[in-house]
Amino acid sequence: VSAARLPLLITLTTDFGHADWFVGAMKGVILGQTPGAMIVDLTHAVPSGDIRAGAFALLAGCRCFPPGTVHVAVVDPSVGSSRPALAVRTTDYYFLGPDNGVLSFALARERVQAVRRIENERLFRQPVSASFHGRDVFAPVAAYLAGGGDFARVGPEAGGFVRLRWPEPQVAKEGWTGEVIYVDHFGNAITNLGPEQLGGRAPQGVELMLPGRKRCPLAACYQAAPVGQPLGLIGSCGLLEVAVNRGSAARSLGLRVGSKVQVRFFARPSRGRSHKA
Amino acid sequence: VSAARLPLLITLTTDFGHADWFVGAMKGVILGQTPGAMIVDLTHAVPSGDIRAGAFALLAGCRCFPPGTVHVAVVDPSVGSSRPALAVRTTDYYFLGPDNGVLSFALARERVQAVRRIENERLFRQPVSASFHGRDVFAPVAAYLAGGGDFARVGPEAGGFVRLRWPEPQVAKEGWTGEVIYVDHFGNAITNLGPEQLGGRAPQGVELMLPGRKRCPLAACYQAAPVGQPLGLIGSCGLLEVAVNRGSAARSLGLRVGSKVQVRFFARPSRGRSHKA
Amino acid sequence: VSAARLPLLITLTTDFGHADWFVGAMKGVILGQTPGAMIVDLTHAVPSGDIRAGAFALLAGCRCFPPGTVHVAVVDPSVGSSRPALAVRTTDYYFLGPDNGVLSFALARERVQAVRRIENERLFRQPVSASFHGRDVFAPVAAYLAGGGDFARVGPEAGGFVRLRWPEPQVAKEGWTGEVIYVDHFGNAITNLGPEQLGGRAPQGVELMLPGRKRCPLAACYQAAPVGQPLGLIGSCGLLEVAVNRGSAARSLGLRVGSKVQVRFFARPSRGRSHKA
Repeated sequence: VSAARLPLLITLTTDFGHADWFVGAMKGVILGQTPGAMIVDLTHAVPSGDIRAGAFALLAGCRCFPPGTVHVAVVDPSVGSSRPALAVRTTDYYFLGPDNGVLSFALARERVQAVRRIENERLFRQPVSASFHGRDVFAPVAAYLAGGGDFARVGPEAGGFVRLRWPEPQVAKEGWTGEVIYVDHFGNAITNLGPEQLGGRAPQGVELMLPGRKRCPLAACYQAAPVGQPLGLIGSCGLLEVAVNRGSAARSLGLRVGSKVQVRFFARPSRGRSHKA
Repeated sequence: VSAARLPLLITLTTDFGHADWFVGAMKGVILGQTPGAMIVDLTHAVPSGDIRAGAFALLAGCRCFPPGTVHVAVVDPSVGSSRPALAVRTTDYYFLGPDNGVLSFALARERVQAVRRIENERLFRQPVSASFHGRDVFAPVAAYLAGGGDFARVGPEAGGFVRLRWPEPQVAKEGWTGEVIYVDHFGNAITNLGPEQLGGRAPQGVELMLPGRKRCPLAACYQAAPVGQPLGLIGSCGLLEVAVNRGSAARSLGLRVGSKVQVRFFARPSRGRSHKA
Repeated sequence: VSAARLPLLITLTTDFGHADWFVGAMKGVILGQTPGAMIVDLTHAVPSGDIRAGAFALLAGCRCFPPGTVHVAVVDPSVGSSRPALAVRTTDYYFLGPDNGVLSFALARERVQAVRRIENERLFRQPVSASFHGRDVFAPVAAYLAGGGDFARVGPEAGGFVRLRWPEPQVAKEGWTGEVIYVDHFGNAITNLGPEQLGGRAPQGVELMLPGRKRCPLAACYQAAPVGQPLGLIGSCGLLEVAVNRGSAARSLGLRVGSKVQVRFFARPSRGRSHKA
């Protein structure tokens, strides 16, 4: 009830870039239909057609938004073909996007309540183009839902949705083997390793082994390493990332998506309780 | 009347880029004057001083916005000289920009009601700089008009406005010759050819001839071509564009603004009715 | 009082770039806490860790915003270390950022009323990450202050703040020696020289000496120089900038931050009154 007085919040995650009018066009459609909407760009710089990168950006950013937010993710190289368009209702949010996995990393952390295929053409902007469903399908349906529209009207229930494989860390002889899953603007290399793999060990009990047998320590912040030197830390997504103090880990260490990163424990690890000792 | 309770909508199209504070400064001026305004970036990545590209972006995006929107386009290499600044009222919108043609593609599709030169310095931010009329002239006048200001007060009536030449498709022996007028972020090459040139023919009755005598078929969506292969389709602007499935037509075919693209009909075209047959 | 009904205005200046979800995440935190906030990007393209460039962007843009605006600047290579986070109240604004000088150029032009260290963890987003205080510290505190929160609650009074050195123009034999302090998107080179150094002289009484003993005239607008030729003008920040008509001064003249620029007066300068004569 009271939510009706709050601004309606819609986020956009796309590979549309900033060079053209594409994002602005989506916003025009939304605001024409639901004038009170507040639209936030999560990112529009997903590499063209890189569904995994879009899925990761949505995962990393979506939970910063309050309940009721409508998250729209359009990385959609098969636009105009027969791939379904999805609307997913979770306990806290709506998620809209093509059924190609772009929603799946975020949905794995949400409580999914209902999944529908977006097929009700009466909700679309007409005529629907072959190449811009962001403007013609997702924007008007997002506006409809943000404005309090009936979820059941977007289309029929879907049996499920495409899930991208999340690479699981592998147990190794002296620790864990993981891989880089995202490289950010600063050149920080975010891995699939997290606190569970560190097992509560203090930083002194762990080191990272990077490609080319380069080693680096764990640290509490970037500046704990000398300028230009690498370190690992638990980053803002809750995942282990490899960084270089005042530099780019991607550039200076040659890290990219898929690069292997090992967590190695020392022979006499100081266990979790050492944090509090 | 009821429009007064809607958010006031202003769009910005510029070549200011994202590196500096220029766009933010315009927004600060607008919001200081008209606090309820909603400001949407159409694009700020128009190549420096490329009036045609700005004019095309405005054309392509402006009609996604609801009536009452104020569209501001500042691609203005002659800022500070004697070139006039224009405010144009159409049936649905206001358009503001320098009188260098940047508004002209969009205006060609609108019903123009009145054209005025922006000359009322009492509406400007003072002091007016020599190099940033986006902040000092266009932003405050846009805020004034979005807030319900009197159009007649912006300045005297103008006799007309500068129009950029829109390249018309040429009839060729077996079809039409057109050219690329815009290359987007994905490398899709948008042409001046449209449905009229296809004359209702089914895709099987038409092919495109690209520079270097490369041929490509028409298709209904990007994915209808094999990965890495070119196709033509009627894009989201209603114009024929050349694309490469999961690739960049600009890069792999060497297309750029001005590149010639031919529509060629086959000897026995299947006419429009074949769509429905 | 009436300000409470205005949209709450928050600006963001960061080096987070546009590739990732970082800026969107900050906005989600702000809007979750203070739904009516209007958030404006000043710029997110400050070069990574370039505190001076961020400080200059904030200086150049902040005064375009109405009183009551909360300005947040996060260029923070030492995030997670012991560097303090600051909140500064001036007559017109709040300024928030790390205490590394990023606020100092802007603050030098404001009337500072109070400076506090942001230390009240009850205002933070929990858990606070080691690497993203933009999201976990600055965004929630900005939302708190924009929403009318008590400034004294953000943390204890600070004795002062880090100030970056502003390079002062030097008197030279025939005029002044200054330097480039910022290069913008268009390649215009903004210097630390201003109207005071020109001393009211008419453009004809002054010339600029650029590196490599290249000379250029002062002009009233870009177009006053031939296409491709350099000129100096008082730009939109009120500082002398070197530009090239329809070109990039940075590229064609090799100007960068720190490049020396001399103002030279002619033997018989026509003094200020010549403006009005």
